[in-house]
Formats: sequence, C-alpha cells, structure tokens
Amino acid sequence: MRYEELTIEGRNAVLEALRSGKPIDKLFVLEGCQDGPIRSITREAKKHDTIVKFVARERLDQMSETKKHQGVIAFAAAYEYAQIEDMLALAQERKEAPFLFLLDGIEDPHNLGAIIRTANLAGAHGVIIPKNRAVGLTATVAKASAGALNYTPVAKVTNLSHTIRELKEQGLWFVCADMAGEAMYRLDLKGPVGLVIGSEGEGVSKLVRENCDFMAAIPMRGEINSLNASVAAGVLAYEIVRQRMG
Amino acid sequence: MRYEELTIEGRNAVLEALRSGKPIDKLFVLEGCQDGPIRSITREAKKHDTIVKFVARERLDQMSETKKHQGVIAFAAAYEYAQIEDMLALAQERKEAPFLFLLDGIEDPHNLGAIIRTANLAGAHGVIIPKNRAVGLTATVAKASAGALNYTPVAKVTNLSHTIRELKEQGLWFVCADMAGEAMYRLDLKGPVGLVIGSEGEGVSKLVRENCDFMAAIPMRGEINSLNASVAAGVLAYEIVRQRMG
Repeated sequence: MRYEELTIEGRNAVLEALRSGKPIDKLFVLEGCQDGPIRSITREAKKHDTIVKFVARERLDQMSETKKHQGVIAFAAAYEYAQIEDMLALAQERKEAPFLFLLDGIEDPHNLGAIIRTANLAGAHGVIIPKNRAVGLTATVAKASAGALNYTPVAKVTNLSHTIRELKEQGLWFVCADMAGEAMYRLDLKGPVGLVIGSEGEGVSKLVRENCDFMAAIPMRGEINSLNASVAAGVLAYEIVRQRMG
Repeated sequence: MRYEELTIEGRNAVLEALRSGKPIDKLFVLEGCQDGPIRSITREAKKHDTIVKFVARERLDQMSETKKHQGVIAFAAAYEYAQIEDMLALAQERKEAPFLFLLDGIEDPHNLGAIIRTANLAGAHGVIIPKNRAVGLTATVAKASAGALNYTPVAKVTNLSHTIRELKEQGLWFVCADMAGEAMYRLDLKGPVGLVIGSEGEGVSKLVRENCDFMAAIPMRGEINSLNASVAAGVLAYEIVRQRMG
C-alpha cells in the first residue's frame, strides 16, 4: 500500500527527520545496503522504535517521487502520536472512567479514520494502534476521521498485549470483539474499559485475545461472517455508551 | 465517479442491453445528439426508468474503454435489483416484523457495501436505494458487502418519499437518523420498521424526513458532528436488534 502521507527521500533528509524527532511511520531501505550513512539511519530509526523494511531497488524506485531516493525513503505521519498517559489524564480531567479503543491491526485507512471518528463521538479518551502490520496516521486516515484526529488522541505501541497488561494494572478491563463471546448486551461494560477490535481479515489475534477479560459478541442473524471492522467498532462502542448512560 | 462495473458502449450494444431488460444503472449520451438511433435509445431508457445524463464529448471519451462509444455509454449494474414485495415476502416467510433499510443518497460504494453487510447481519429483509444521486450495485459495492449482496435483496426506487408512503400503508413505521431526534434508546423500535439513513454529506433530505414517523438520535459526546454513514447505520440497526431481542 502506498501512503498518501509526506514522503521523505534521500539520506540527509531522512537522517535529519529522524534526529529531529519527526514521527516516522515507516522507513524503507535498499536491501543489502550496509554503508556508513545507511547504518547511521537504521541506528537512529532503532532509537525511535521506527519500523525498518528492507526492500528491492524496484520497489523503492516505484515509491519514489523525486527519483533521487539514494536507497532510503521514509513516510512521515500526517499527525503526531499521543501518549497513553495523556488519555488517562483526559479521562481523569473529565471525571470519567477511562474508555479506550485498541485496534489490533486495522490496515484500511478508511476504517481507521471511521473508528477514530466513532471514538470521538462515543466519548472515548483515545485510540491505541500497533506499530507493525497496521496503517498509521496518514492523510487518508485524517480525512476519513472527519476532523476527529484533532481531538481524539491516538497512540502507537510496539506490543498491544504488553500495553493491555500495563493498563490492567491501572484498573482497566479489556473486552474484545469475538463471535464466540457472550452477547454484548449481557456483559457489564460500565467500568474503566478497553475495547479491542481485530483486523479486517483476521479478527483479534490469539495472544491479544488471551489478554482480554471478556469476549463480546455482536448478534449475527445473517448468512455472512462478520461486520465491517469500523461498523463492528461502532456497534460495540455504542453498547458501552448505552450502558454508561443507563 | 467512474464505476468499476460493466460498461456497454456503442449504439447497438446499448440498445440491445436495454431491450433485453439488463439492469442499467446509468446511461450517458452525447449532448446535442438527436438522431434516430439515439432517440430510440433514450426512449427505451425512459421505458425502463433508467437515468439518462447528457454529457460533453470529452467526458464520454474519457469514460470510454473501447474509444468507439458512438455517443453513448451505459453502465450495467453488477447485481440484479430486487422488488420491495420480495422483501416483505421474506419477512413473512421468516415470521418476522419487516425490517428494511432505506438509504437516502449514499454515494460512497464502500459505505453502501458496508451497509448491505450490516443489513444482512442485523437480520434486515432488504435495502432500498434511490435511482438518482446515489451509487448503485457496482462491483466495488459487491466487494465491500463481503458477500451479503448474494443474500440481502436490494431494490432501487424512483422516489423514496413515495415508497415510504406506500410502505406505511403496509403497516411499517419509519425512523430516520437525525441528531435533532429523540435518543434512540428511548424509542420503541420493535415493530415493522424502515430505518432511513441519510447521505454522507447532507444527512436525510427534508422531504424524506417529513415522511418519517420518528427521528432517532445517536448520542454524540465528542467535538465533531457526525459518524461515518455506515457506522451510524450499524449503531441504529443494532439498537433495533437489541430491542427486538429483549
């Protein structure tokens, strides 16, 4: 997938962006390239926990807008990422039980944007996405969020299961969308809660699911298997809203 | 918008398609062109209630795949449309109160596909879309519906308000999504119901809204104005599911 976000090409430009702390979603490096400048770049990337992908020259040439990439192209996030602490602080400030979305590998930018939009309107305090195998805050996501990205903080984490375990220590319960779970109407979703939504194709991964406290099922009365990921997120989020209002 | 559906170009091919009753979503004709064959085509199109648009030569040339359009290009629907009677028969067969979706001008094929997917899983008996100012059953819609188009009937009508009035005589109540309405949790949505969802930009049009019995509001606790149309449809549809289960 080609991101519509800001691309940064060439060794100096990419190294500079990394050193300045600019949020880089992904870094593509020519495979087999191991010279000094490239090693500085990958070292700096590691420092910032940036995902580095080694790809063939054809792929880089194809991605390049300037055609002068010098073996390295970075994609900068269109928006800055927030910290999870900011989200918990927001909940505290509003005197509300924390309500977070955790997205386990959403790849479609329209879905991510629609989910951030839902999170904003459902009164959630933030959205947590993983660094790997997921779309970041691209321009398409920003557009699909209909402005919600300006209000709802989004954090990017290395390991969702790890984040879930940490947040449990802060008193949050985790509920994941899973057809095999209990009907959502019968679960108590009023407390401090993290709502875990799986990816479009795979659902919630096994490891993440095992770290959840509940599995919530949306009743399915039709012939097909699953709702669109952003619709499922909306339906579950509003069941939480309903219970919190009641 | 360019549809990804089957395009039919040239006078004989288009006339033949119309006469055979093939479902044509839209017909584009060179503006100012008034000769015999073109008049036969527009007359046949009128008979089938097909939307005809008169466009400049540049537009036709741009749409053309064969570059031999002879002043006329038709877009055939990827799927056949159903009749509203089929939907009511389906409800009767299942011994359920009718539950229909009416979409007032959804233009994004991904949204339409996601809504048909939701309609299937929420146990609705069909989806009604208008002929004009809305996307039809294109290949993109079929894909986004994740197979639901094979099960959930979709009908296309000339005038949504007219359809609503007719269905009211059959005992249906109509509820439309509107921020100014009553909170959806407080409405009784258990009976035979038509759920009316507005377009992405404009919401439900004034005339259609005036024909509805209720306005249902999804609680909005954030800074932005509206949910994605397919998410809003999902949230409202599952409030109907919840009430019907209870």
